[in-house]
Amino acid sequence: MQPRNEAILRGHGGRVDEAERLYPEAPTPWIDLSTGINPHAYPVPAVDPEAYRRLPLGRDIDRLTDAAAAAYGRPAGTALLPVPGSELAIRLLPVILGSRARVGVVGRTYSSHAAAWEETGATVRPLPALPDPAARDLDVVVLVNPNNPDGASVSRAELLGFAEAWTATGRKLIVDEAFADVAPELSLLAAERLPDGVLVLRSLGKFYGLAGLRVGFVAVAERAAMPWRRRLGDWPVSGPACAIAAAALLDTAWAATMRARLAADRARLEGMLVSGGLRILGGTDLFVLAEGPPGRDLVDAFAHAGILVRGFPHTPNRYRFGLPADEPAFARLAAACRSLAAAAPGR
Amino acid sequence: MQPRNEAILRGHGGRVDEAERLYPEAPTPWIDLSTGINPHAYPVPAVDPEAYRRLPLGRDIDRLTDAAAAAYGRPAGTALLPVPGSELAIRLLPVILGSRARVGVVGRTYSSHAAAWEETGATVRPLPALPDPAARDLDVVVLVNPNNPDGASVSRAELLGFAEAWTATGRKLIVDEAFADVAPELSLLAAERLPDGVLVLRSLGKFYGLAGLRVGFVAVAERAAMPWRRRLGDWPVSGPACAIAAAALLDTAWAATMRARLAADRARLEGMLVSGGLRILGGTDLFVLAEGPPGRDLVDAFAHAGILVRGFPHTPNRYRFGLPADEPAFARLAAACRSLAAAAPGR
Repeated sequence: MQPRNEAILRGHGGRVDEAERLYPEAPTPWIDLSTGINPHAYPVPAVDPEAYRRLPLGRDIDRLTDAAAAAYGRPAGTALLPVPGSELAIRLLPVILGSRARVGVVGRTYSSHAAAWEETGATVRPLPALPDPAARDLDVVVLVNPNNPDGASVSRAELLGFAEAWTATGRKLIVDEAFADVAPELSLLAAERLPDGVLVLRSLGKFYGLAGLRVGFVAVAERAAMPWRRRLGDWPVSGPACAIAAAALLDTAWAATMRARLAADRARLEGMLVSGGLRILGGTDLFVLAEGPPGRDLVDAFAHAGILVRGFPHTPNRYRFGLPADEPAFARLAAACRSLAAAAPGR
Repeated sequence: MQPRNEAILRGHGGRVDEAERLYPEAPTPWIDLSTGINPHAYPVPAVDPEAYRRLPLGRDIDRLTDAAAAAYGRPAGTALLPVPGSELAIRLLPVILGSRARVGVVGRTYSSHAAAWEETGATVRPLPALPDPAARDLDVVVLVNPNNPDGASVSRAELLGFAEAWTATGRKLIVDEAFADVAPELSLLAAERLPDGVLVLRSLGKFYGLAGLRVGFVAVAERAAMPWRRRLGDWPVSGPACAIAAAALLDTAWAATMRARLAADRARLEGMLVSGGLRILGGTDLFVLAEGPPGRDLVDAFAHAGILVRGFPHTPNRYRFGLPADEPAFARLAAACRSLAAAAPGR
């Protein structure tokens, strides 16, 4: 057997290939709960083969942008720029906003934000909450809303008030709304207008379940959009991705049904985890953060059952669980939770 | 009728939507010869729907990279990094190599190279040919090989000699091989090794005819690859694009047949243009650059026949023609060339 190194499973989610290699004896197929991606992906429509052949036209990009505005809202004077995955946008932020910035990242959150800034030489500091706008030691604040992995959130009204005060002196506020599709009441994109200096990220990866498609959006004041347009070029997203993403964003019936389904599945998931002795710390309708008993490695325990869950290097007894895709997945998770409970000390 | 503004057709190719608006009375469907993209695109295989849903795995990216190495070659110590379109790579070059650079661009060529550098504050100078390596007034040289639109080329041996001398003092050489699939004898990627400081760009858009897919590669010394990996992230290319691009790159039989077909089609295209009174200036097996009679606007003349060709703002009687896709397209071009010849002065 190869030496195990579950640390590799504690970075990004989605590493089923690594899990298979590390746990060759685990039952298959692997059940991947490590990502927070909706397992009931939007059904990809057939794509006109022509879309692969020709460069995306201006009207293809416009149609995608209009679909995003219809789904998310679009504050007056705000540009919605398609990007090939919001991860790329995260990595371009320091390039476009200035790599010498002093950056505060609110809460324990998606690690790419801090990494992208640090790699370009920026100073990055974790913040327990939104800072006092009167403070003068930061240039950029990054907030993931609702947050991944704990689901913590800031209301739209509170965030707009902060944004107004924070950006009045030229500072920037970056709000990553990758999970806001299941909490649309939080989204800044439904505001009538946004202060210049606010930048919102959206993604088709999570709620629409199209992580492989690599489509997201940067919402930024039209007057600040030029550096983004220049770096992204005229064809930021592939032709097939334009067509598929626009279809998904315009399908409001699918979205409404899906929101209800995900809320129900989350409740069921939380029930199973509690029955396994875990304590629910937070979440969204796409994932749940839970705490396991100290001294037990539940990434390893679930991996033995062929279930990949997400651990975190600095909080070893916290785990994030995405939603099981179907009855067999719920059943295997329920069985694994029963085993956990049976193995718990004191029973 | 709307006012015409053919200038918009002289920027990038592929603007059939604009052409339709400017020439509503032209025969349809429009025949788009404006791009240099192979009209016989690689037939896109069916994609596993799962590829849209999950993040591309490391092995998906590895498979794509290995396919590129098999198709292009891979010098020892060189990383082949997938990018979502080589256009994005062009726009990231100044970000990664330093926006204060003094840049020389060889020949009249694809305008995005100069634009990407100028937009970030670099100094850009056109060069008639590769500079003397003894010169000390440039940091970066950009060469498109073979060149677009005139097909001019530098042999591999000559370019390797230049690269060795040029990069020895830490300077960079960027070689855009977007059209090298039809001139593989030129490609630096078939060299056994490359000097550090050489950066080669490839694209699936032109020869494979998959411009809408947005897949390309940056080839760069492994020891210089980290800034690219950091800016592009773990999922630089969508899952479906990985699968489609890998299939295309591994299909050597298709590539061999296609090279022969494109060479024959180019000869036929050149014959028609000559019969229409144009003079052939150069080209590759994917496009032809030709000169028309002074004082006549052939972008406009061909547009009246529903044929979109590429004009150039600074050389108004030069035109680039891509290959017609089929017999009706060849026939309409032949008829348009006959009309041109009949309208020529002196007949």
